[in-house]
Amino acid sequence: MTDPRHAILFEPVRIGPKTLPNRFYQVPHATGFGSAKPATQAAFREVKAEGGWGGVCVEYSPVSADADEEPHVAAYLRDERDEAALAMTADAIHRHGALAGVELYHGGNSSKNVSSRHARIAPSARTAEIRWGSQAREMTMDDIARVQADFVHSARLARDAGFDIVYVYGAHGYLLTQFLSPWHNVRTDGYGGTLANRARFALETLEQVRTAIGHDCAIATRFCLDGRRGIKGVRVEEMLQFVALADPLVDLVDVTVGSWPEDSGTSRYYPEGHQLSWTSQVRSATTKPIVGVGRYTNPDQMAALITSGQFDLIGAARPAIADPFLPRKVAEGRLGDIRECTGANVCILKEEDFRHIGCIQNPTAGEEYRRGWHPERIPATSDPDRSVLVIGAGPAGMECALTLGNRGFSAVHLVEAEDDIGGRMTWVRRLPTLGDWGRIVDWRRTQLDRLANVEVITGRRLTASEVLDYGADIVVVATGSRWCDDGTQPGTRRPILGAAGSLTPEKVMAGERPRGQRVAVYDVDGYFAGPGIAELLANEGYDVHLVTPDSVVSPMSDGTLEGPMLRQHLHDAGITMHAGVTLRECADGSVTGETTYGDPWRLAVDDLVLVTHQVPTDGLYRELMADESALRTAGVTSVFLIGDAQSPRWISEAVFDGHRLAREIDLTDPRFPAPTLRDLPT
Amino acid sequence: MTDPRHAILFEPVRIGPKTLPNRFYQVPHATGFGSAKPATQAAFREVKAEGGWGGVCVEYSPVSADADEEPHVAAYLRDERDEAALAMTADAIHRHGALAGVELYHGGNSSKNVSSRHARIAPSARTAEIRWGSQAREMTMDDIARVQADFVHSARLARDAGFDIVYVYGAHGYLLTQFLSPWHNVRTDGYGGTLANRARFALETLEQVRTAIGHDCAIATRFCLDGRRGIKGVRVEEMLQFVALADPLVDLVDVTVGSWPEDSGTSRYYPEGHQLSWTSQVRSATTKPIVGVGRYTNPDQMAALITSGQFDLIGAARPAIADPFLPRKVAEGRLGDIRECTGANVCILKEEDFRHIGCIQNPTAGEEYRRGWHPERIPATSDPDRSVLVIGAGPAGMECALTLGNRGFSAVHLVEAEDDIGGRMTWVRRLPTLGDWGRIVDWRRTQLDRLANVEVITGRRLTASEVLDYGADIVVVATGSRWCDDGTQPGTRRPILGAAGSLTPEKVMAGERPRGQRVAVYDVDGYFAGPGIAELLANEGYDVHLVTPDSVVSPMSDGTLEGPMLRQHLHDAGITMHAGVTLRECADGSVTGETTYGDPWRLAVDDLVLVTHQVPTDGLYRELMADESALRTAGVTSVFLIGDAQSPRWISEAVFDGHRLAREIDLTDPRFPAPTLRDLPT
Repeated sequence: MTDPRHAILFEPVRIGPKTLPNRFYQVPHATGFGSAKPATQAAFREVKAEGGWGGVCVEYSPVSADADEEPHVAAYLRDERDEAALAMTADAIHRHGALAGVELYHGGNSSKNVSSRHARIAPSARTAEIRWGSQAREMTMDDIARVQADFVHSARLARDAGFDIVYVYGAHGYLLTQFLSPWHNVRTDGYGGTLANRARFALETLEQVRTAIGHDCAIATRFCLDGRRGIKGVRVEEMLQFVALADPLVDLVDVTVGSWPEDSGTSRYYPEGHQLSWTSQVRSATTKPIVGVGRYTNPDQMAALITSGQFDLIGAARPAIADPFLPRKVAEGRLGDIRECTGANVCILKEEDFRHIGCIQNPTAGEEYRRGWHPERIPATSDPDRSVLVIGAGPAGMECALTLGNRGFSAVHLVEAEDDIGGRMTWVRRLPTLGDWGRIVDWRRTQLDRLANVEVITGRRLTASEVLDYGADIVVVATGSRWCDDGTQPGTRRPILGAAGSLTPEKVMAGERPRGQRVAVYDVDGYFAGPGIAELLANEGYDVHLVTPDSVVSPMSDGTLEGPMLRQHLHDAGITMHAGVTLRECADGSVTGETTYGDPWRLAVDDLVLVTHQVPTDGLYRELMADESALRTAGVTSVFLIGDAQSPRWISEAVFDGHRLAREIDLTDPRFPAPTLRDLPT
Repeated sequence: MTDPRHAILFEPVRIGPKTLPNRFYQVPHATGFGSAKPATQAAFREVKAEGGWGGVCVEYSPVSADADEEPHVAAYLRDERDEAALAMTADAIHRHGALAGVELYHGGNSSKNVSSRHARIAPSARTAEIRWGSQAREMTMDDIARVQADFVHSARLARDAGFDIVYVYGAHGYLLTQFLSPWHNVRTDGYGGTLANRARFALETLEQVRTAIGHDCAIATRFCLDGRRGIKGVRVEEMLQFVALADPLVDLVDVTVGSWPEDSGTSRYYPEGHQLSWTSQVRSATTKPIVGVGRYTNPDQMAALITSGQFDLIGAARPAIADPFLPRKVAEGRLGDIRECTGANVCILKEEDFRHIGCIQNPTAGEEYRRGWHPERIPATSDPDRSVLVIGAGPAGMECALTLGNRGFSAVHLVEAEDDIGGRMTWVRRLPTLGDWGRIVDWRRTQLDRLANVEVITGRRLTASEVLDYGADIVVVATGSRWCDDGTQPGTRRPILGAAGSLTPEKVMAGERPRGQRVAVYDVDGYFAGPGIAELLANEGYDVHLVTPDSVVSPMSDGTLEGPMLRQHLHDAGITMHAGVTLRECADGSVTGETTYGDPWRLAVDDLVLVTHQVPTDGLYRELMADESALRTAGVTSVFLIGDAQSPRWISEAVFDGHRLAREIDLTDPRFPAPTLRDLPT
């Protein structure tokens, strides 16, 4: 049952005409679903309401034709079809007693407008913040009135769709912030100049929306304060003045910091609650409930934030993706069951680049509708008498064994060759800045420990004949992959001459070290492993040169919002970065290759660490599959290959792969993902 | 009427069970419509059939779940809903007597699979060509049979949807090419090794598809030969052997060169028909009709290709986007009316990045359904007695005057301050490699000349009082923009200290030259202007340093497939590139600033050219709008601001803006684009 220390989190909170059932609040965040995948949106948000989040919001809803975000997917409220699409979500949230919120906004000079082909608008005709279309035009008085009317129109549709909380949203540098900010707003009329003037657009809009729907809905607003990277928004002193001015017009104050990369800072570069030094100051400016985020997963910390008066509601986006049932687990005192967010921002990469959210921790995120997966409930297997041997306890194997256990298989053995479970995570989590990724292992370890039908055996490397003798009905091979140590790379498909037997991430993390002081880390992978090893060696005093054929170091990190910080971090650690270089040879105390332009390139180094290409460790699987009759004789009905051992992919996909196989193992052909449901606009 | 020299282009051509009505053939190309925007797809392809293209194909249609391309938009044929969606297009094409084609393919290791979350497959377990998921798994015999069955399944759906031509498509390095290519295929079974073995997968697939639908549909195949950038495909000698092996199984041979950036090479770096040195060799290997592309717009050249026997059909993607009525114009002897493709690849940027195709030359491309725009027909104005004064003959003004003329306004005057029409295009087209962009002006000049109701007046710079006295009912201000010459830039919103009055692209193109030999071109714009000026000065012998705050030079060019070639080109021209540098000051023979990492940066130079920020030239418009009573007295009913003068954007958007205003000028509020139709999946 609920720990008394956490009882405060379950107090209801009144916001205007509505009452939140508790203090857990899922702030607006994008998913790729918007109003375009209505059933997917509804299913994704519903599990959060079911899991105990008292307020659940959908993502950004552009109010005007010149706030067009296509081809990104937004929660458009353009017409009755959109209203019907999003009503499915509001209904789903209400089924569990939670309040539903929507984020009405106009992007101003950050709007894409590539589909509408409108010119961008902004308070002043200044260069736009994003590239396509270099400049926004200054809004006329007609524009101001039009956009405000658009807010009111969308607010009515939002109310009619069943939303309880309607945001007039200014965070992330959107149009309302552009008016507030002297960086964007150099108007000389009544909407520019003094703070009162710069605040006028937002205050008028809030007032009009309030007049239109304020009796029916709670009016929320969200603004971002300048953070450590921000110079383009609004300073804390002025923001507090604005909040005070807005106080009579709002029912809920949602505060965040900086623009997106900072607001959603990853665990690598931002600690939990890093926003507090700014957001904690808001209390002085408002009498209304305050919500703020901080990637919080610890209920003690949450309760302290409420008790101290800094926040009234605990806002969350990523922790609610990683564990939709976090509040209910707190309520039930099941703290060890909370699947904690790693702060890896795979959710953001998937939402932004793939237009369909996913999660590195929670394999069901985004799969609620199309695969029918619930984060907490899983159907029992149709044939529980079978036993399963899962070989390899990396992300795929751990998740597979856990999910098989939850499905009620009589006996699941997870057998790991190393002395501890975790697979590649055992070394990944020890790379500088990557500690929080260890939560992938920690949560699964706890869960595996609780299942009586799952046995975890470490330090045992099975041969094929031992597998046959094991007595399992089903064998799952999850033996992972290793970094190749001859430099074989995508661009050339060839080894690097003279590099055979070089250091790799695994070797370094197993304790091997470069011969000599000056070392090249050659990163063709382009994500976290190369920079991680480089930083580790630099911290130990090596003179590290990070060489990559990519045009920038770690391009993958740009998708997780980490790129600029990661490169700054490496630079500050004294690492020399060489982009656009393909290595061909390693000999005589130097590495040689060529630049993007075909020019020869050489660097004198004492040693080389290769982060080029991963090789599946699938020998055991191949050996087993080569002798079908032996499998029959041994009574093994199926052998599956999952995770990196099948195809080296990102950690999120290994977790997914293990989960998927366990979910689908009773289907006719569980080797491949079952077909998914299509979700079409209403 | 048709010039006898071009009669050969209008001969019918038999392909298997079908007959193409002529030799104009729109090859498959992506649009962003696929089967997701069925009415948009149908309208986009229909105008091509109507315009005389005898064969019109839709884009790529992935056959298997592990060929998932989401979130990119493909012409999926998964089920009856997709079949119904694409049947709309086949029907639309048939209405004009053309044949409809569809491109069935499997991407193998280039498949995204981010939605399906399948592992990638390939002939061999080698590193994938694209990043997400580093490695494909080797296809089993089961996989081979499954994918071939998927081809057959999709082929049947394609036939049932009404397609006449079904591609078993291997170009662009897709799975069929991966089997053929020793770079991808290192199998040691019957599908790897000798050419006959590597060809087996494609030949079997062709045979199975032929057996299933060969009586009903023409079977086409498309393969790419290795080009000058390619080492990853199949060499010409082997490809010719493959074509000979496939000859009995196909009805149409479609040949292209290299992977996508080369196949769709822009006019900046690839001349028309650059593929011929390879593609012209195919004749020796096949008895079947051959189609090839080359960005051809000149019917003499097309006829020569047919007469010489190199091709039987003239393939086109981009020229058919720029002018859907090209064949009909040739048939009618209206050669001067052909709106020639510029080869700028704005179509590709819009399709890939924005998921909705558009064109720099043809403002109606992609707007056929959602805005109801036909490329050749335009409704007459409801009130033709009005006269219009268009001020400024850049892309927006030219297009606006032309479209107003076509709508039948009694008098349209296009008044230009400079001695010639073209606006910024007069200097852009004189930049190195940008000559073909001049077609934007050339076509409009010809068209304007033919309209009796449009008068073009050059060398006349109108003042506000002259505008009022002009006697026009409607005034359209299209006065463009200029590059600011103090270095004001997006990242700082500040001028560069000491830079006031610096050179800009316009100044250089007007004949001004740097003081001294060593010059920095500072490019914050990131597209063509900075590199163009740098190359021009380098060609004249200056020691040019191209400095940019972007992480690579000209990131916009990556979207048009030009980036790597552009940077190589600049490098080869001896230009030194400095990426990641923000300039702050220009003084004492050097420019100074800081790197991305905040480190100070300095370069000794004799002079500086600024390509930072464009300022709208909207003074005339503001002056006119400031005195409404003067407008009333003068009888001016409306004043509009379009193109760069409203908001500096890309050339394609200026053309669009001019066209749009002319189309919509009779609506209630023509200042903004009218709402567009939504197109939803069936």
